[in-house]
Amino acid sequence: MPVNLSAPDPLALHAVAGLRIATTMAGIRKANRRDLVLFALDEGAAVAGVFTRNRFCAAPVQICQRQLAAGHAIRALLVNTGNANAGTGADGLARTERCCAALAAQLGVDAGQVLPFSTGVIMETLPVERIEAALPALIAALRPADGAAWADAAAGIMTTDTLPKAASRQLAIGGRTVNVTGISKGAGMIRPNMATMLGYMATDAVIAPALLQPLLQEAADLSFNRITIDGDTSTNDSFMLMATQGAGHAPITSLDSPDGRALRDAIVAVAQQLAQAIVRDGEGATKFITVTVQGGRDEAECRLAAYAIAHSPLVKTAFFASDPNLGRILAAVGYAGIDDLDQGRIEMHLDEVHVVTQGGRHPGYREEDGQRVMKRSEITVRVDLRRGSAETTVWTCDLSHDYVSINADYRS
Amino acid sequence: MPVNLSAPDPLALHAVAGLRIATTMAGIRKANRRDLVLFALDEGAAVAGVFTRNRFCAAPVQICQRQLAAGHAIRALLVNTGNANAGTGADGLARTERCCAALAAQLGVDAGQVLPFSTGVIMETLPVERIEAALPALIAALRPADGAAWADAAAGIMTTDTLPKAASRQLAIGGRTVNVTGISKGAGMIRPNMATMLGYMATDAVIAPALLQPLLQEAADLSFNRITIDGDTSTNDSFMLMATQGAGHAPITSLDSPDGRALRDAIVAVAQQLAQAIVRDGEGATKFITVTVQGGRDEAECRLAAYAIAHSPLVKTAFFASDPNLGRILAAVGYAGIDDLDQGRIEMHLDEVHVVTQGGRHPGYREEDGQRVMKRSEITVRVDLRRGSAETTVWTCDLSHDYVSINADYRS
Repeated sequence: MPVNLSAPDPLALHAVAGLRIATTMAGIRKANRRDLVLFALDEGAAVAGVFTRNRFCAAPVQICQRQLAAGHAIRALLVNTGNANAGTGADGLARTERCCAALAAQLGVDAGQVLPFSTGVIMETLPVERIEAALPALIAALRPADGAAWADAAAGIMTTDTLPKAASRQLAIGGRTVNVTGISKGAGMIRPNMATMLGYMATDAVIAPALLQPLLQEAADLSFNRITIDGDTSTNDSFMLMATQGAGHAPITSLDSPDGRALRDAIVAVAQQLAQAIVRDGEGATKFITVTVQGGRDEAECRLAAYAIAHSPLVKTAFFASDPNLGRILAAVGYAGIDDLDQGRIEMHLDEVHVVTQGGRHPGYREEDGQRVMKRSEITVRVDLRRGSAETTVWTCDLSHDYVSINADYRS
Repeated sequence: MPVNLSAPDPLALHAVAGLRIATTMAGIRKANRRDLVLFALDEGAAVAGVFTRNRFCAAPVQICQRQLAAGHAIRALLVNTGNANAGTGADGLARTERCCAALAAQLGVDAGQVLPFSTGVIMETLPVERIEAALPALIAALRPADGAAWADAAAGIMTTDTLPKAASRQLAIGGRTVNVTGISKGAGMIRPNMATMLGYMATDAVIAPALLQPLLQEAADLSFNRITIDGDTSTNDSFMLMATQGAGHAPITSLDSPDGRALRDAIVAVAQQLAQAIVRDGEGATKFITVTVQGGRDEAECRLAAYAIAHSPLVKTAFFASDPNLGRILAAVGYAGIDDLDQGRIEMHLDEVHVVTQGGRHPGYREEDGQRVMKRSEITVRVDLRRGSAETTVWTCDLSHDYVSINADYRS
């Protein structure tokens, strides 16, 4: 069951002018479910992307990186679920290229202007004929990117997600209304490294195209790169930002300007909400856990400790059981890889409860206080290394029976 | 259920002269179970140890390291279960020192000649009074280290293990019979880093004391340092080798001599059997998985890939389900941290089945072949990176519902 997450309200998802969206059922893996989503951009839009660092990155990821590096004016993003087209070698690349070419021909653009995305089972052959057969209906279904279209797309990219995920913000720049809306999918194989499974954001803000990539990178670092469900970095992680440039205000030419910062804040807020939604709907999740590690010498060592806690199966099963077996958190900090860590300095809080002082049990700590916090659906673990002023936060979920069930049954 | 593992047969565990063993019930955490084990060495024995690299290492680990570094002649090893005495600060150190002093006084040796070991729940106060109260009965129970005594000790150090673990070999050196016998415990929080939860080996071989530590280190690297259950490195890992020097042959003064190599082979064999027994009895384990990564530029990158596979919850749940969802293995290799890996060179076998060639599905691979192998209780994954000649092997188990149940209920 997702943790404090509900399906997005289409009325709360702001339209982004200059973008059209369509979904359809192509029967890629299963019949009668939406598995193909198309984003079509008007001329003049700019697109940035960050992608998985998995060296077994999928064929579509390789092609996206190639198209973006070549500087093509992107006009369409095509997303399929049901098949990851990863671990498929040269044949996989050829199949994705064929999809791009077919869509480009029907849209009247070049194949290099199409970005492909896939998610689903790894090492299966992409059924390109089914995708080609579905393209005419998909293109016919294109409609402006209003709240209902975004909600449809959010449902169309789901795999083992139990709920669609979307977020939206509105801000004013130069007297004009600017919209930022995005969707994401996740559920399992989630330990993004530069991006998540799939995330798509669009804004009608007018912004210098060169700023889009650093803006997206910062948003990814503050959102998708801070979540983990099972520590498995996907082969298909892709997080995209589309700027349709249609809001009519004077162009943003610096991210350090007031307008640049306002847009940046809205984009980070949407990205964080989308990333956290993935954790809330993590496979089998029953708890949403915020892990903050402070007092580090640098952020890198804070991340080591935070991810060691967030990945530990023993910590995660203790959260599932609401069992304040909190020594497991100390053990994770201990093996995180901070070689000269002094255990005698460590402090730890669980929400408002002071559990550990100077590396040992706090004299005032009572088991029932830990128990009270562990029963909550949202819990913050705060560890202070007391050796510096760096800090980081990651978000994760617990490890439940349902995680095992879902992943033991995923393909059946 | 343990995978192809049965309780040790006391008749198959060779006696080690110069060593006495006792177990008793001290009621440390629960009544009516053996939770205190004593090894008492005759004068002249040599002892070596390797310990966890967890920076939150337990109080007894800190004291063991101190006693061994000081060069004390070790006469006794005292092991308690039910309480790890980790995450307990200065008070934890004082309590372990009090145990050592009490035992030393009753044995008529110095406190510095006692090595302490603890395993169990972290961040709980060690009930030193209960241990002190049990010492007279424990000492009275000392008897020669024959097969029955070893089997008792193997049972006495268990926590969530379902079976005791012991292994033994006999060899001839200089016309004399030499015995090597050991025990171990594991079950959870198992990703040893220099050692495992607890392992004790003894031999009556006559060997230069200076050779004992390198011999133990090599045995650990080839056994306990190659297993993982859940990736959680314990706070209490300790692996000890005792040499009672009583077999009567000419002393071994080089590990490169024929006698040195013969002893080394026997010790590695016992250590590997003990380490693999821990995996076979891993929490919730239903399968024993051997992961071999070959064709690496160096062993370090082979280890990265092998442990990425062995730790992936998605790979482990697929093994639990006997589901040949083998792309998950490729994904793990891809995120293992080998930055310049060329996915187009990767080959993969599952036992005798050739699954992946040149980074994609092998044309001859059929799902039913993968399915047939996945149903076995012992499976070897072999990945060839095809970029060098280094190779490594690690052993692990699957991730089942029972792992979650055991760790959600551990303290209750």
